[in-house]
Amino acid sequence: MRILIIGGDGYLGWPTAMHFAARGHQVAVLDNLQKRKWESELGVAPLAPIASLKDRAEVFQQKTGHPIEVHIGDVGDEAFIRGVLSSFRPEAIVHYGEQPSAPFSMIDAKHAIISQANNVLGTLQLAFAMHDLTPDAHLIKLGTMGEYGTPNIDIEEGYLDIEHNGRRDRLPFPKSPGSFYHLSKVHDSHNLMLAAKLWNLRVTDLNQGVVYGTDTDETVLDPQLATSFHYDGWFGTVINRFVTQAVAGEPITLYGTGGQKRALLNIRDTLQCVEISALNPAAPGEFRVFNQFTESFTVQELGSLVVEAAQPLGFKAETKEIPNPRMESESHHYNPKNSGLVALGMKPRLLTTEVLQQMVQWVASHKDRIDRKVIMPTVKWR
Amino acid sequence: MRILIIGGDGYLGWPTAMHFAARGHQVAVLDNLQKRKWESELGVAPLAPIASLKDRAEVFQQKTGHPIEVHIGDVGDEAFIRGVLSSFRPEAIVHYGEQPSAPFSMIDAKHAIISQANNVLGTLQLAFAMHDLTPDAHLIKLGTMGEYGTPNIDIEEGYLDIEHNGRRDRLPFPKSPGSFYHLSKVHDSHNLMLAAKLWNLRVTDLNQGVVYGTDTDETVLDPQLATSFHYDGWFGTVINRFVTQAVAGEPITLYGTGGQKRALLNIRDTLQCVEISALNPAAPGEFRVFNQFTESFTVQELGSLVVEAAQPLGFKAETKEIPNPRMESESHHYNPKNSGLVALGMKPRLLTTEVLQQMVQWVASHKDRIDRKVIMPTVKWR
Repeated sequence: MRILIIGGDGYLGWPTAMHFAARGHQVAVLDNLQKRKWESELGVAPLAPIASLKDRAEVFQQKTGHPIEVHIGDVGDEAFIRGVLSSFRPEAIVHYGEQPSAPFSMIDAKHAIISQANNVLGTLQLAFAMHDLTPDAHLIKLGTMGEYGTPNIDIEEGYLDIEHNGRRDRLPFPKSPGSFYHLSKVHDSHNLMLAAKLWNLRVTDLNQGVVYGTDTDETVLDPQLATSFHYDGWFGTVINRFVTQAVAGEPITLYGTGGQKRALLNIRDTLQCVEISALNPAAPGEFRVFNQFTESFTVQELGSLVVEAAQPLGFKAETKEIPNPRMESESHHYNPKNSGLVALGMKPRLLTTEVLQQMVQWVASHKDRIDRKVIMPTVKWR
Repeated sequence: MRILIIGGDGYLGWPTAMHFAARGHQVAVLDNLQKRKWESELGVAPLAPIASLKDRAEVFQQKTGHPIEVHIGDVGDEAFIRGVLSSFRPEAIVHYGEQPSAPFSMIDAKHAIISQANNVLGTLQLAFAMHDLTPDAHLIKLGTMGEYGTPNIDIEEGYLDIEHNGRRDRLPFPKSPGSFYHLSKVHDSHNLMLAAKLWNLRVTDLNQGVVYGTDTDETVLDPQLATSFHYDGWFGTVINRFVTQAVAGEPITLYGTGGQKRALLNIRDTLQCVEISALNPAAPGEFRVFNQFTESFTVQELGSLVVEAAQPLGFKAETKEIPNPRMESESHHYNPKNSGLVALGMKPRLLTTEVLQQMVQWVASHKDRIDRKVIMPTVKWR
């Protein structure tokens, strides 16, 4: 299959590109390299050194024989995205090309607007280009479980059967997210639902949990194929940050009581789920929604799991409660469903001590690059 | 009360500004005049000649003694909106400053993106400016009944009590709108719901029906105080277009069978509802939603009402079915609620033959300015 990975320079985009290429698919990556600029602005960097996207693609081809075509440019640039779709003619498009940080979107008006402009308008540009040039391609769009917020009812996959005043309908699941970043994904979902209906586009919306992990089958082939692992307060996800805090000898910082629940998955399961989605495309006109995660934990439980994994390896790991910079419930119902991907054969890799210890060891091998100053959150939601 | 009208040059913004000023409130209007540029691009113009915003404010002051402060600039321009909030210190802000046309948003990628950028990012800029400078001001934001689409359940006001798997919550009403313009309003609502919660802002979201009418108590004071009545396929609303078709001797064009239902209100009731909202502000932190309309009709019924009003005045008025350029159900359940504004004292002006005949006569008095070429829709949704 010809598959285009938008945001192919990122934590998930690059491993996804290698994953499909290693399995014999024809892969192109597209990235505007904007996230590298945001990293510079914020003074943060991935834990392992990351070569240029072109160099990584070259190393990957040397190691495996599989080419990855590289396009540097912005999905929101009409001429550019239309040029790429016209020349590459993708059958599937995996769209990770969005500003991925909630705290970044909460800095000020400028950063909220950058986040929604980049994410929402870029995706809209893509949808129109697909309509005009590759109307039968399958768009696999990454959203987040954070779109749902924490309603006091079970979280279904994208839709909800509602009975009201004696009448019934199946409607989009009501969403109440907690940041302007998460809202950008809600806006994307609404826009793409209409695009699918209007133009018969095939769309799969993946509401992904919090991803953790350092390695995939391809990143381990060469140090230059590593993915951009973040542990900072801007782009680092919860387990990745906790593991880094343990290795750095810093306290593992729970937001508030740590009672808030998160849906999670291993980076290898991101690749598994995206592959399952690509191999089982949505029908023309279908806006299909999967909740893409494997397990749920409270943040407090995650802290304890990291402590239990890190201590036997000689790290003094301790959790510590800090004031929650976000505005969220620390005690709430949380029962999200993920039966769609399970039904298509998704086999979860669980968050075991072994998995965590492998992460601890990988982070420890880059310990000298940890910048303690950037670990803690700095933006407050209110 | 000090009240800022954003989009104060428009069909509703200008009459709203005069309405509040005539009642002794201190009024400022803000407009980027972008809609006048879009009119030029599309080759359309309001039916009555419209003077510059500054000239209209001068004429209004000469006629009534009430000043209206004019600010020309973009709500999305951070320095500009912050300057206006800092100097004028509004207690209420009525925000009409959005691209108002569904067909405009469906032309192509560029126009969809302009619509969502102007509307969503401008409103986001405003919300941050309010947070920083006028956190106790009351934002009255105009949305549309079209945000809801046509679900097979009754349409409540912004929220829905849901029972699911034995648990209950009150959640945002699920929305399924039919254009990128309508989606921009859905995005606004989601963004402002979070802003109210995070920052204790007072927000009233008015999901307005289709407005019709030519006159308010203030527009009739002088021909130079007329509002920008549109009958074209871009900015004209359904009754305004039907009346103009009748006067022009053109067929009154129903989209498809005309079975689709619309919620409507008189332009005078827009002013009444906005005034009621301003005098009864939302509480700090409240995202209050009212459905702002007075009656519902099928498009076919509207066509017949215009025929019945126009024929006795000597116009050969006939309805004609044309292919529906939109993608919408022409037969559907439609039971929207509007009890919030009614409870606060809103008294509907109904769509009577007398009201329609007054419109017919006003349009007839400008008959020589009707451009028949621009009445019909040109953009198709698919």
